[in-house]
Amino acid sequence: MFITFEGIDGSGKSTQSRMLADSLRADGREVVATREPGGSPGAEEIRRLVLQGDPDRWSAETEILLFTAARRDHLERTIAPALAEGRIVVCDRFADSTRIYQGLTRGDLRALVDRLHALMIGREPDLTFLIDIDPGIGLARARARKGHEERFEDFGLPMQERMRAGFLALAAEFPARFRLIDGNRAPETVAAEVAALTRAALA
Amino acid sequence: MFITFEGIDGSGKSTQSRMLADSLRADGREVVATREPGGSPGAEEIRRLVLQGDPDRWSAETEILLFTAARRDHLERTIAPALAEGRIVVCDRFADSTRIYQGLTRGDLRALVDRLHALMIGREPDLTFLIDIDPGIGLARARARKGHEERFEDFGLPMQERMRAGFLALAAEFPARFRLIDGNRAPETVAAEVAALTRAALA
Repeated sequence: MFITFEGIDGSGKSTQSRMLADSLRADGREVVATREPGGSPGAEEIRRLVLQGDPDRWSAETEILLFTAARRDHLERTIAPALAEGRIVVCDRFADSTRIYQGLTRGDLRALVDRLHALMIGREPDLTFLIDIDPGIGLARARARKGHEERFEDFGLPMQERMRAGFLALAAEFPARFRLIDGNRAPETVAAEVAALTRAALA
Repeated sequence: MFITFEGIDGSGKSTQSRMLADSLRADGREVVATREPGGSPGAEEIRRLVLQGDPDRWSAETEILLFTAARRDHLERTIAPALAEGRIVVCDRFADSTRIYQGLTRGDLRALVDRLHALMIGREPDLTFLIDIDPGIGLARARARKGHEERFEDFGLPMQERMRAGFLALAAEFPARFRLIDGNRAPETVAAEVAALTRAALA
């Protein structure tokens, strides 16, 4: 089973992704925990190329191509082999993030992202947890953290709100694989719901 | 006018590309001479990422995505602005090289290369010179040079022959823009023919 976590910056999805991996391992399951962009040596190199330097150094279209190249490598080298061996793959962000971040925030490129995904990636997750959170809280958390990825986090509240709306629309578009999770609660409470939904899907 | 040079390794296309740029400048024309992979700061970074390291570090599909990302950047930052200013762009290799190198030599991926090109690049050259040379001579020249791109040149004679056949088939597929040039002659003789054909196309 291929499980992904999505959400706006500061939603807590990275924490939830780790907590689910730990919980499944405690159940005795074999889990590969990974993240995007990156997740394989080649994809991590592409990640560095995209995220470092001037935010305007790549156009939205070039950025989409670079993220898709990284995703292809990640899928081939990390995700697909793990799934073939019967492991559960838990991934912090996947193609839905590209649909929202590159597809919505840098012009209306969603159709382009989808066509490129269909051509070069194909695979969708079996289960996607959308950790939904108040955009203001998410922004404050992301800013407090201030990582090297601030170029994607420093777009302000209107952008956070737009991205949240985009993720909610995506969840409505693919109801079979999406699970909408209220992230405005204690991490342990959120994690318990995520783990219960995952066990139900695995059963 | 957007002019490209294509051919197998050691065909002399880089030399011919330079000689045409010089010749057009001597005519008083404004020329931008460039090359792929690379040709813009971002594309040069992607070039290094693709060409360095173990030849098997990227799958053919990931490599095609990386080359397309580099081409998109090169087109946006170097080629399109120069054409918009009325300059002539002379480029050593372009999408036809991807159609042959990635499309033919690493599995039958030509259809994938074409679909990705249509989606993310679109633009074709106005004029393409295919410098056609005996594959054995080309291989000997390329090996004598032994650059940092040997990973693409060290495929031996059968591969050179296959790539030559691929380029000839491509020229037959797009007769409007391709000019087939016999590269088994003195560079000056080849250059004179190329310059005459370019002047005819510009007239």
